[in-house]
Amino acid sequence: MELDTVASLGEFGIIARITKGLPAAPAVSVGPGDDAAVFLVNGSSVSSVDVLVEGVHFRRDWVPAEMLGRRAVAVAAADIEAMGAYQAAVLVGLTVPADIPVAWIDDLAKGIRLECEAAGAVLVGGDLTRGRDVVISVTVMGETRGTVPVLRSGAQPGDVVAFRGRLGWSAGGLAVLSRGFRSPRALVEAYQLPQVPYGAGAEARLAGATAMIDVSDGLIADLGHIADSSQVCLDLDSARFDVPVPLHAVAAATGTDPLRFMLTGGEDHALAATFPLGKVPLDWQVIGVVSDAEPGVLVDGQPYDETPGWDHFRH
Amino acid sequence: MELDTVASLGEFGIIARITKGLPAAPAVSVGPGDDAAVFLVNGSSVSSVDVLVEGVHFRRDWVPAEMLGRRAVAVAAADIEAMGAYQAAVLVGLTVPADIPVAWIDDLAKGIRLECEAAGAVLVGGDLTRGRDVVISVTVMGETRGTVPVLRSGAQPGDVVAFRGRLGWSAGGLAVLSRGFRSPRALVEAYQLPQVPYGAGAEARLAGATAMIDVSDGLIADLGHIADSSQVCLDLDSARFDVPVPLHAVAAATGTDPLRFMLTGGEDHALAATFPLGKVPLDWQVIGVVSDAEPGVLVDGQPYDETPGWDHFRH
Repeated sequence: MELDTVASLGEFGIIARITKGLPAAPAVSVGPGDDAAVFLVNGSSVSSVDVLVEGVHFRRDWVPAEMLGRRAVAVAAADIEAMGAYQAAVLVGLTVPADIPVAWIDDLAKGIRLECEAAGAVLVGGDLTRGRDVVISVTVMGETRGTVPVLRSGAQPGDVVAFRGRLGWSAGGLAVLSRGFRSPRALVEAYQLPQVPYGAGAEARLAGATAMIDVSDGLIADLGHIADSSQVCLDLDSARFDVPVPLHAVAAATGTDPLRFMLTGGEDHALAATFPLGKVPLDWQVIGVVSDAEPGVLVDGQPYDETPGWDHFRH
Repeated sequence: MELDTVASLGEFGIIARITKGLPAAPAVSVGPGDDAAVFLVNGSSVSSVDVLVEGVHFRRDWVPAEMLGRRAVAVAAADIEAMGAYQAAVLVGLTVPADIPVAWIDDLAKGIRLECEAAGAVLVGGDLTRGRDVVISVTVMGETRGTVPVLRSGAQPGDVVAFRGRLGWSAGGLAVLSRGFRSPRALVEAYQLPQVPYGAGAEARLAGATAMIDVSDGLIADLGHIADSSQVCLDLDSARFDVPVPLHAVAAATGTDPLRFMLTGGEDHALAATFPLGKVPLDWQVIGVVSDAEPGVLVDGQPYDETPGWDHFRH
């Protein structure tokens, strides 16, 4: 059996496969197929780009193409959530080796479409090019619909710190895969595909969130951005973290404190925010308080004893 | 002397260098440094992404970093021009090897800022990550300001075909560099940095352009998209092409018809459009007519005798 590759179908053949059957959307007056996409923005535009690189953010043998497509959109869409804004449109810049099977691209495109749908955004355009490694660049454009975005800089002493979504699951899954295992399955799947709590960003804004961020690099690292921008101290209470069952197993197997996964593991794209006392939505988990102590992030009143978070050029 | 690399400065150190001193813009309420950028869109949003890959679109030894930064923005901004829209904001997804000198990134960032300024757009955000090759993904977002975009599908029999900008210069420059030469200098510079005719897209729209595209893959290939979308025949008149002086020299040296550079060379990002007779703006060059013959592109009434244009997976 001869396998179709992107080289045999060509750039325009592939683009036609990806864009075929895309749903129409009332706000989109020009979708894929012209020089640029045109869509109506309600309020201000809220936009962010995230790039996933093979060998850095993922290995093709660890993440099925459909999951990867979903993840690429989820990672960028999480930034729109973190502003408390509404999802609108997605552009994808895709670089692939010429010998990649068309079936892989089809699966990736399916994942991109599915996650756009889950997020409430429309795929409006993209660019396809060749390269040595798979590189997926996703731009998500949202809209404020006349509301005021939640920035990193609004946290106030007296606020509480809370999160919604998952913490440490993806890092746990990576620890599993790195050791050559495929279970606990729930963690591996969490690594392959973050569960962004779509809609929770707007929910937090409506409830009165004073600052918000999505946890991409690790909770302590990302709350550090809120601490810096707001010039406040965020003191987390370790007793308030419920360690998920599958994390206990991996922590035991790797000799790690399970809390470490939750405090420093990135890529789950939970939302973390500060709220005035008494304003936290029901489905958010309160994990700490904001004070006027020296700006930074503490755990049980102490600095956490390991360089947290992820710097792409230092690992 | 020890050279700083991106590995020594780290992801956030590099981002701080790139975003330092960016000009403020009244429409931009949140620039780089939060989860997403926020800016006001006047009319509908017009957006496009283009990806440049090292080893495919450029070689680092052939294009200085500042030129590369400019080119990456220009290529994407040309798509906004081709809609007859107005430039607004830019997001950059940048992938670089960890051992790249910081000076190279500084130059690239300078080029990005300069071309944003030339285009009339504001750099509002981005993502920086590590990879084996340099990959630059630029999303340009424009706005319609209440006008109707010029699509590829509006060409009518009886219209004339015209272009503004350069044709064949970049291909001539590539031919020069590929043979190990560095002159004619004007062509090499044209290859390094396309001269997008900023403002000409809106000018064409105001004049009544019926269809428009930017020439990225080659004039015949790109006019082919207008022919397909509009279901018309575009017949070019070879006598109407003025071959630029430097192209004559390269054509003679390489034994090529200079017109071939102009008809099939891409990456100059000229604008090509169709206009009702008598509506062509003064600074556009008329090169052909639109008829109701079988959809396609002809030169002097005949199909052009070489597969034109550029397919990333077939070269």
